[in-house]
Amino acid sequence: MAAEPERAREAECGGERDGGVAPSERTRVRRAPQRARYDRETVEAILDEGVFAHVGFAVEGRPFVIPMVYGRRGDVLYLHGSPASRLLRAGRDGVELCLTVTHLDGIVLARSAFHTSVNYRSVVLFARAVPVDDAAEKLEALRAVVDHAVPGRWSGVRGPDETEFRRTLVLKVPISEASAKVRTGPPVDDESDMTSDAWAGVIPVQLAYGEPLPDPQLRAGIEPTPDVAGYRGPGSPA
Amino acid sequence: MAAEPERAREAECGGERDGGVAPSERTRVRRAPQRARYDRETVEAILDEGVFAHVGFAVEGRPFVIPMVYGRRGDVLYLHGSPASRLLRAGRDGVELCLTVTHLDGIVLARSAFHTSVNYRSVVLFARAVPVDDAAEKLEALRAVVDHAVPGRWSGVRGPDETEFRRTLVLKVPISEASAKVRTGPPVDDESDMTSDAWAGVIPVQLAYGEPLPDPQLRAGIEPTPDVAGYRGPGSPA
Repeated sequence: MAAEPERAREAECGGERDGGVAPSERTRVRRAPQRARYDRETVEAILDEGVFAHVGFAVEGRPFVIPMVYGRRGDVLYLHGSPASRLLRAGRDGVELCLTVTHLDGIVLARSAFHTSVNYRSVVLFARAVPVDDAAEKLEALRAVVDHAVPGRWSGVRGPDETEFRRTLVLKVPISEASAKVRTGPPVDDESDMTSDAWAGVIPVQLAYGEPLPDPQLRAGIEPTPDVAGYRGPGSPA
Repeated sequence: MAAEPERAREAECGGERDGGVAPSERTRVRRAPQRARYDRETVEAILDEGVFAHVGFAVEGRPFVIPMVYGRRGDVLYLHGSPASRLLRAGRDGVELCLTVTHLDGIVLARSAFHTSVNYRSVVLFARAVPVDDAAEKLEALRAVVDHAVPGRWSGVRGPDETEFRRTLVLKVPISEASAKVRTGPPVDDESDMTSDAWAGVIPVQLAYGEPLPDPQLRAGIEPTPDVAGYRGPGSPA
């Protein structure tokens, strides 16, 4: 299950450094660099398909990693939650954050334990967040989060009232120091293992969305709207 | 999409503190504590169903969060990879780690933006890792990782040779300071929103495993073994 190094038969994933996410020394992918991507399009596509970002921060050198929902507008992500949240307080106070979004695409079964692997797409984003105090931007950020989870949902639900709005802290996270890492394709075995009797290949993995389950307290006669009935996963507009 | 606080109609998830994962001040769930669980059975079940742990560590106060595969044996998790990996080197050197494993179970559509939520199960585990130098334990750890991804796979593939073995660093992570957080059930709306015309309920989400795709270079006549043909996701034995 060791991931690297692997031979050139692995699907090459670029390594190009165009686009606008400005890789830094910190975002440069060191392990399996042939899997690295730094273009904004790839980074944004991976972010837009995610529901949770795993948000890391350190307090007195101790790391914390918390799953958080988010939304995107252009080149920023928005996080939100209670002003009492340790993560949001730390972020508001300018602590460095690391947000990682990962999609599992397949279990890669090689002929050897060493080359057993996984197909995945991930983004690692480093940033300092900024609290969003402007009311209009804050409302738009909350809309971005709801519409990220279920595109189009915001316009069909009651918006935040004054108390809810005040009780929600919103952070803006610039997408300016990020890298993506992508593994695709079949296993990459050693030449000497190709005569193995072991089955080799990939078990594809994806998130599956089931039929919407109505709230037991849903009023009679209310049918799912198209954004719900036709739900195909999260997404944020460009 | 603010997650808390929510009313008591939400499925209660315990808050009990029995079992052996010894919650500390750090693992005590502060936000939405009604969702917290500290029993070992819940923690292990969530870990066993995961493919990736998001592993956080800090270097000079800067957080990093990296997705890593893992395996479990009893009350330890094993991580592995190249000795050149920054994460593994930091872990080997005794840096504190935070491992988070999250399963998304549903998109929770409330009648208000504020109560829009997600159903999920997550574990947050704090630990200092120890490098595994003993050859027998190291081999067993690598087996745990491969058999976690595909239960039973290890016995059907070539094990690590001396070079691969030497090129792999294995860390042991004790599961002794962990907490789980679980949200289940329908949306929890304010009483005053229950007359809303909005559809409310849950869109279930799960990982789906597709038909195994043979390696284009697979020798003719090799069929998937039962562990592959009947694959239903990862798992580690108790």
